[in-house]
Amino acid sequence: MKKLRETIDRIELVDGSLAEKTQKRLDILTKPKGSFGRLEELAKQIVEITRNEMPRLDKKVIFTMAGDHGVAFSGVSAFPKEVTAQMVYNFLAGGAGINVLAKHVGAKVVIVDMGVACDLKEHPDLIVKKVNYGTKNIAEEAAMTKEEAIKSIENGIEVFEEKFDSMKGIDIAGTGEMGIANTTPSSAIASVITGEKVSDMTGRGTGIDDARLQLKIEIIEKAIQINKPDPNDALDILSKVGGFEIGGLSGVILAAASKRVPIIIDGFISSAAALVAYKLEPKTRDYMISAHSSVERGHAAVLKYLGLEPLLDFNLRLGEGTGAALAIGVVEAAVKILREMATFESAGVSKKKIN
Amino acid sequence: MKKLRETIDRIELVDGSLAEKTQKRLDILTKPKGSFGRLEELAKQIVEITRNEMPRLDKKVIFTMAGDHGVAFSGVSAFPKEVTAQMVYNFLAGGAGINVLAKHVGAKVVIVDMGVACDLKEHPDLIVKKVNYGTKNIAEEAAMTKEEAIKSIENGIEVFEEKFDSMKGIDIAGTGEMGIANTTPSSAIASVITGEKVSDMTGRGTGIDDARLQLKIEIIEKAIQINKPDPNDALDILSKVGGFEIGGLSGVILAAASKRVPIIIDGFISSAAALVAYKLEPKTRDYMISAHSSVERGHAAVLKYLGLEPLLDFNLRLGEGTGAALAIGVVEAAVKILREMATFESAGVSKKKIN
Repeated sequence: MKKLRETIDRIELVDGSLAEKTQKRLDILTKPKGSFGRLEELAKQIVEITRNEMPRLDKKVIFTMAGDHGVAFSGVSAFPKEVTAQMVYNFLAGGAGINVLAKHVGAKVVIVDMGVACDLKEHPDLIVKKVNYGTKNIAEEAAMTKEEAIKSIENGIEVFEEKFDSMKGIDIAGTGEMGIANTTPSSAIASVITGEKVSDMTGRGTGIDDARLQLKIEIIEKAIQINKPDPNDALDILSKVGGFEIGGLSGVILAAASKRVPIIIDGFISSAAALVAYKLEPKTRDYMISAHSSVERGHAAVLKYLGLEPLLDFNLRLGEGTGAALAIGVVEAAVKILREMATFESAGVSKKKIN
Repeated sequence: MKKLRETIDRIELVDGSLAEKTQKRLDILTKPKGSFGRLEELAKQIVEITRNEMPRLDKKVIFTMAGDHGVAFSGVSAFPKEVTAQMVYNFLAGGAGINVLAKHVGAKVVIVDMGVACDLKEHPDLIVKKVNYGTKNIAEEAAMTKEEAIKSIENGIEVFEEKFDSMKGIDIAGTGEMGIANTTPSSAIASVITGEKVSDMTGRGTGIDDARLQLKIEIIEKAIQINKPDPNDALDILSKVGGFEIGGLSGVILAAASKRVPIIIDGFISSAAALVAYKLEPKTRDYMISAHSSVERGHAAVLKYLGLEPLLDFNLRLGEGTGAALAIGVVEAAVKILREMATFESAGVSKKKIN
């Protein structure tokens, strides 16, 4: 608990006083005022987070965390449970969607075993921070102990801090995950924290039909009913209906905020991790950028609760950090505008004369 | 007229038969079926356009065309007319928004004087295809002669073909423009072709107030009233209420389609050029990708008329091809998914078992 407490204590408010100054800089660049729209908002947010008036986003990292879920045995997913481990090997071999998109934007993918249900083969790029061999089935009991919930978050913090040290800093980070059935705990977390109905927070994940969706809703309702997570206690929620990779990502988010690093929140499952981080320390919110609007039912309500506006809308429902990778490319573009564009004065361009 | 006729004659329908085959390829990649949403649609479209089942988008070009507008003297813009030429120099010096964003996605910017109202200083990167020294004031007379309208399109075709030859092919192209007051002719073109009211097609451009917006609407209504463009004759519309850079971009779009090159349509003004190209040859439509949803009023109706769905929504209103540059980065990501991801079989990942 000490590491978690210390990390939270280090998180400061972003420096909102820099927004006006940055807008002034944006306004002397050779373009109509405000004409870069959302990109100008992003540039300001990055300055507020980093306290650097001319930020660069050279060191980009996506943390893709994997874990298994006991509830997968209840038939809530379209894919068999062994796919979690198989996909981790695919990440390590460079063949998954996140590998392709991270490479496209020049980001490194950090792959972490937070709680896969088997021992994975050793690999130089695999970080093992396994809390346990998959969670328990939340339809029957708590997903994990309170100690395991804390450990999952602290392991996530450790992963971020170790990379931050070995890379001599991180300029922007993204979240990603892999875990068969992990939309189920995510929907449970989202429902408990936002107070929305389970049926409004539960979607088709990787692609289940109507009957299985109904089963999934009933299982989540049952999980909340028997475990009785306290809506005001993030650790209680994570331990009762969460997952190891979700806790790990909450830790990544907390650690990023504590190091003044902008953190891109991928899709629905990452947003559940963001909810847990936000409940632990609301100041984390201003360090977050929502990558995209997921197809998954409930995502919009979670983002509304967090006060985040998704950047992209491509009907993605893949996870892994794929949306975060695409968003990193856009955020980097926003920062380059601030850094690289000429001013009206330097370019000898006349300013607006009328209105 | 010969070059225009020949170019149009070379445009074929995209090869829709390749969509199913490409979807089959996408479906064996290690991800839930359809989970890359819009990116899968983009990948299929690029295959249909290029007839290449494993396309690469290495050679990326944005054509940024400049022209002046007689109607600028009627006070429809927030910026003085000399800014058109000043911004061309800024493009050539590399300090404008389009330079920064094109570089970010690895695209070359081709800068063309289609009809700036003065002689620009020579520069190795400036292509001069000047049709005339700015258009006439459409509030008083036709923007240009019918011959000039044809020449503007043919000059655009020439620019594309010359670059296509010198670069030994172009894999993807984007449109961009600079021309003080050019939302005014764009609104006029959009209103005439879509049949929508001028007031629904006219926005604030680079930032005018309510009174000036009202004046702009009245000027466009007057321009249509006195010039009487024939809604079914694209060349008549372009000559009466168009612009040289708009015609040039229509030529770029036609030439791209004739060479089977995907063409990204930037914002409102580029979409007016797309309307002209579409009216000349409807087959061009399937070669187009709409980069983003512009702030400019009327853009949504134009895209609806063309049957295009904008890719990004960042409240941009800058032009130059800036939205096209950002979109090129996304389209390239979509194509890389198709090319670079592992299959279930090659990665040893189990396929979906249920539902």
